[in-house]
Parts: sequence; structure tokens; C-alpha cells
Amino acid sequence: MTPLIFTDFGFSKLTTDDYISLIAASTNAFNGALLARRPDHYKHFTVAGIIVLAYAGGIGGGIVRDVLLNKLPAPLINPWYLILCLAAAVIALIVDYYAEQRFKDGLFQFMTAFTLPWYAIVGAKAALDAHLGYLAAVLIGIIATTAGRWIIDVACNVVPKQLVRGEFFVVSAALTGIAYVVCDQLGVPVIPATIVAFLVGFGFRLTAQTLGWEEWEPWEPENLQTGEKSRKKLGEGLRAEFSTTRSIKETTK
Amino acid sequence: MTPLIFTDFGFSKLTTDDYISLIAASTNAFNGALLARRPDHYKHFTVAGIIVLAYAGGIGGGIVRDVLLNKLPAPLINPWYLILCLAAAVIALIVDYYAEQRFKDGLFQFMTAFTLPWYAIVGAKAALDAHLGYLAAVLIGIIATTAGRWIIDVACNVVPKQLVRGEFFVVSAALTGIAYVVCDQLGVPVIPATIVAFLVGFGFRLTAQTLGWEEWEPWEPENLQTGEKSRKKLGEGLRAEFSTTRSIKETTK
Amino acid sequence: MTPLIFTDFGFSKLTTDDYISLIAASTNAFNGALLARRPDHYKHFTVAGIIVLAYAGGIGGGIVRDVLLNKLPAPLINPWYLILCLAAAVIALIVDYYAEQRFKDGLFQFMTAFTLPWYAIVGAKAALDAHLGYLAAVLIGIIATTAGRWIIDVACNVVPKQLVRGEFFVVSAALTGIAYVVCDQLGVPVIPATIVAFLVGFGFRLTAQTLGWEEWEPWEPENLQTGEKSRKKLGEGLRAEFSTTRSIKETTK
Repeated sequence: MTPLIFTDFGFSKLTTDDYISLIAASTNAFNGALLARRPDHYKHFTVAGIIVLAYAGGIGGGIVRDVLLNKLPAPLINPWYLILCLAAAVIALIVDYYAEQRFKDGLFQFMTAFTLPWYAIVGAKAALDAHLGYLAAVLIGIIATTAGRWIIDVACNVVPKQLVRGEFFVVSAALTGIAYVVCDQLGVPVIPATIVAFLVGFGFRLTAQTLGWEEWEPWEPENLQTGEKSRKKLGEGLRAEFSTTRSIKETTK
Repeated sequence: MTPLIFTDFGFSKLTTDDYISLIAASTNAFNGALLARRPDHYKHFTVAGIIVLAYAGGIGGGIVRDVLLNKLPAPLINPWYLILCLAAAVIALIVDYYAEQRFKDGLFQFMTAFTLPWYAIVGAKAALDAHLGYLAAVLIGIIATTAGRWIIDVACNVVPKQLVRGEFFVVSAALTGIAYVVCDQLGVPVIPATIVAFLVGFGFRLTAQTLGWEEWEPWEPENLQTGEKSRKKLGEGLRAEFSTTRSIKETTK
Repeated sequence: MTPLIFTDFGFSKLTTDDYISLIAASTNAFNGALLARRPDHYKHFTVAGIIVLAYAGGIGGGIVRDVLLNKLPAPLINPWYLILCLAAAVIALIVDYYAEQRFKDGLFQFMTAFTLPWYAIVGAKAALDAHLGYLAAVLIGIIATTAGRWIIDVACNVVPKQLVRGEFFVVSAALTGIAYVVCDQLGVPVIPATIVAFLVGFGFRLTAQTLGWEEWEPWEPENLQTGEKSRKKLGEGLRAEFSTTRSIKETTK
């Protein structure tokens, strides 16, 4: 078998899923690069580092989705993913250099809503195609949508956005996935189903952002100062447990 | 092919592996939600965030195990995983609201030991079923057992429990996996082998917790203050290396 | 089917890929253990914790590579990976105990360059074998090379080395992968191609370290103090966006 000499660049025919995934990847890469430059995430990143974070945000969701579905990740099969994410990162850096802070804040907020539904749609579609159930389809959509942000936040030593107040990030992804699954099961073709699901997710997130809706944060835990230092040996803990079982029962009455 | 209209919820027949995995997932989800509310991990999480962390703790281990074994993750195939983990997270929040701190500390410590062996058992079993060797089976058991905690700790900006003193977390998982592998290879059927391995892992962890056993922490590194700032160019490093090779040899005599 | 009694240790015939991967795994495990003991990463790790980090650095890259390529991870198939990484971690701890700080600094810097090319080579090779394109091959090489360091850095609450100044870590991995792909496509056999790619990656990194070359860090973002607190509702952001669109256009002229 003679080796192919520099012909195996891997460009292949793109499917509808690929087009939606490419929108998801490149818009999320754009947003990832902007995020890396925001003051709450900035950690003296180099240009190479910003491009790495843009890729994490851009193809992270697609890779995690395909790994969970036990497939070769689409971003590795077709180089358009890598090319478009690099272009998106470069454009984001140019915008970051030339634009004013207020424009960048607005753009970032807008893009956060605009980029959100794509991976939720194509993730839910991929899960349905793999004959997983509805709950799994919505879950894959949520994970594909939010995995990139999780990776970036953790790398920047920031608590992941999924876990704290933030205009219904996870819920928007879930609603998008649910909308797509409902359309799909009602027999709506891919493109109109995608449009409906996009409008649901984008509309909900935009409304939440505009009106300042935020997730509910429960009561503060007790003993916030003490932390791990107050950890007891289990012997003490068990004694505590048995002696307080009665008081619990009284409390829950 | 007519689309099925809302019938594809994905519920399917559960295997013995699924039952053990479901115990592992739901008890770990319960513990994950409690952990998210502990003062050393709490970072102003929303209710949605606590549920996300409960899922990370609950199905994280099962997903990592199946991804490593190159299979579709069980928690995506059968929705009972998602339903039971949600229920466990809700119960944990209710307990967190109504119970006293001392009861919660005791319960968390007890559950930490009780939840530990399940993923180690089913992970080792899955690896043996995939015809991997004994070492890989124990390793898959350890990874499945501790992956959820790693994800939660990193997301909460806490150093993962695996790495610091903590009542033999990794060793308990290893002992459980070893006990299961030994039973399995001696021809013991799944259910008694599971019981034996559970007792080994749970018993060891409980003993370690009760008696305050902890892993050995080696000597402190020198120069703890200097950190990355003292990084040298390699030229200096190499000079240092060659000039100190002799002194090393003297030291090691 | 009678169970095999303690014969399934999983040792199997090693391929050329395995030999290169074993060099990659054991040298990276050695470096991972040294890294865990460096003042900027040290977080009161136990001996078990240091071994866990050595495994993360050692087999992390190989596992991530094989998961991305949708294969059973080589480090799970053949126990030599686990045995050699443990040996490397133990040797690193012995060196850490007996050697002087200056020697350790030099050794760590040298090993950082020496360990880098192996996973880039075998990652690129594995991707080409899986009929992925050139870009994907280089990307898999980069990810396999740097994944272990990412996992360790995140666990130690340190910003991943890929993202900040550091003697062209990512670029060195990319150059190694490119060199291997070029050799491979020119028909050079595996072993000479490996040697050429190793010399390219090792030589570039060593030169960068010796001469103190570092990646370019772009201009500082504005408003570094304000952070997430200054986040606006989208309404304000959009108003800002529309009112500044003109000023942008003027700026970009």
C-alpha cells in the first residue's frame, strides 16, 4: 500500500448535523475567546492559550457529545471544525482589540444567548439517532451545550456557570432540547424543528437576560466558616447521628 | 418509517449490573448534593447547580467507567439512573433543610463509607466482562468510584479528595475491587461476591473513619514560598544539574 | 465456562506503538510526580495522592487519545503501563528525597523537554492509522501530549500550562506532530520517523527553554478589577451595543 503523499486532509461531505454543529462550534469558539479575555476569567493567557480555550469552548461540546455516544468525534473527522474555530478565535481577538468595553459586554451577552441552542439541538438529535430515550436526548443536549463552558471555567479557576446564578443557562439548554425532541417526535423535519427549538432556547435565554431572571439559590448552609477542619472521626459522627435521630423526627413533624 | 410518538422513553430491562450501578448512582448523587452544601465546598450554588453536582457525583462514575470500556454509558441507556439521582438530590436537600448540623455530619461520613464500594464492584465486574486483566479491573473500579468526587471537588475549587489525607479513599476502593476480583476468579457468583467486596470496602473505610486512620503525607518540599517565580532557564538548570551530580552521589551513599 | 483462576493478568504482546507509548507514559509519570512536589503545585498531597497524580500525568494522555479515537485505552489493555508508571513515581519520590533543589529544578526542566515528543508522535500515528486527516492527527498529538499536564494543573488549582507563558509547550507538541506526519506521508518508516519527530520537538523545546523563549501574551484587558460584578442585564448591554456600533466602525477604519 503506497502512502498517499499529502492528500489526506480529511475534508469530506458535510451533513445537516455537521452544518448545525459547525454553527455551534464556531460561535462557541468566538464566545470562548471573548470569555478568556473577560476580567473575571483572565489569567494572563497567551495568544496560544486563548486559542486553546476557544477550541475548548468550540469543539469541547461536540467532542464530549460524540464520546458519550461512543462515536469518533465529528471535530476530528472533518477539519472544517478546526479551521472555523481558529477563524472565530482570531475574529474575537480582533473585536476585543478594537471594540469598546460596553460593546464587548453587550456582544458577549448577546452571543451567550445566540450560541446556546445549537449544541442542544444537534446533541438531542444525535441521541435520538442513536436510539436513546427522551431523557437521555435532553441530557446529551445539555451536556453538549454546557461542557465547553465548564472546561473553560474550571481552567480559569472560576466556579462553573452551570452551578451558580446565571440567567438559566442549564434550563435554557434543557428547554431547547425538549422543544427539539417534541418537534422531532411530532414528525417535524430537521430544519423547521431546529428553527423552533432555536427560537425557544434563544428566546427564553434572551428574556431571562433582559429581565434579569436568575436561578433560585437556597438558604445559606450553617457553619460557613468552619469548613473541613470541623470534620469529625466517624465515632463522634455516629454518636451525633443516633442522639439526634429523635430531634429530627420532631423537626420534620 | 413513521416516527414513534412519545413512546421512546428508553425504559428497558435492568440487569444485575444495572441494579448495583443504580445503588451506586443514587447513593452517590445523595452524597454529592450533601457535599455541595458543606461549608468547604459551598460556593453559592443554585438549586439547579446542586442538582448538576448530584448528577456529576451520581452518574459521573458510571459514565467514566463506560467511556473507558468503550461502551454507550448505562446512565444514558436507561432513564432510571436520571430519575433516581434526581430523587436522591431532592431528598438530600430536604434532609439538609430539616436536619441538624451534627446529624448531617454523621450522615455524610456514614454515607461516604456506604456509597464507596458499589462503583468499585460494578466497575471491576465490567472490566472483567470486557476481558481486561486484574490490574485494569481494580483500576477501573477505583476510577469509577472516585471520578464523581474528583469532578465535584475540581468544580468547587477544592483539591480532589484522592490527593490529600482522607481516611483511605483510594485504598478502600482498591481493596473493594481486589476483593471482588478474587471472589470472581474463585468462582463465587455475582451476588455473594458483591456482598463480600462490599463488606471489605465498607468495613475498611468505616474502620479508618472511626479510628481516624489517614494516608501518609511525605516530608514538606523545600522552598515552599518561592513557587514558579524561581523557574530558571534550562541553561542554568543544566549547569546546576552537572555541578550537583557528584553531591547527589555522595548524599545517596 | 469455567473461570480462569488467577491467570488473566492481561500481559500481551507489545507493538511498536506500545513501546513508544510506554516511554511516553513512564517518563510523564516520573515528571508528574516531580511536578506534584514542586512548591507551586504542592497542596499537602499524600503518597497515594502523588501516585494518583503520576498516573494522571503518565497514562492520562494515552487514555484521552484512545477515548477520542473510540478505542479501548491501551493503558487498560496491557498492565505494563500501570507497573512502569508506578515504578517511575517511586523513583521520582526517591530522587525528590535525596537530590538537592537545584538538581531537581534542572532535572524537571530537562525531563519536561524530553518527555514532550513521545505522546505527540504516537498520538499522530494513531490518528493516521484511524484514517483521520492531517490536522486531526496533529491535534490528537497535541491533546495526548498535554492532557496529563492539564489534569494535574487543574487538580492543583493552577492555571493549565497550555494557557500561560511556558516555553512553547503547545507549539512544541504541534511541531513534533507535524514532523511525524510529514515523515510518515513521505514514506519514512516508523522508527526513523519517530527519531526525526523526537529531535524536532525535543530540540525546539530545549532551545526555547535555554534561550527563554516564551509565547506572546496580548494586551491587558480593560477593567481588570471589576469582574463579574459589572455584568449587566442584556437590555443595558444591547443599548450599549447599538449606541457603540458607530464608534466601532470609526475605530476600525
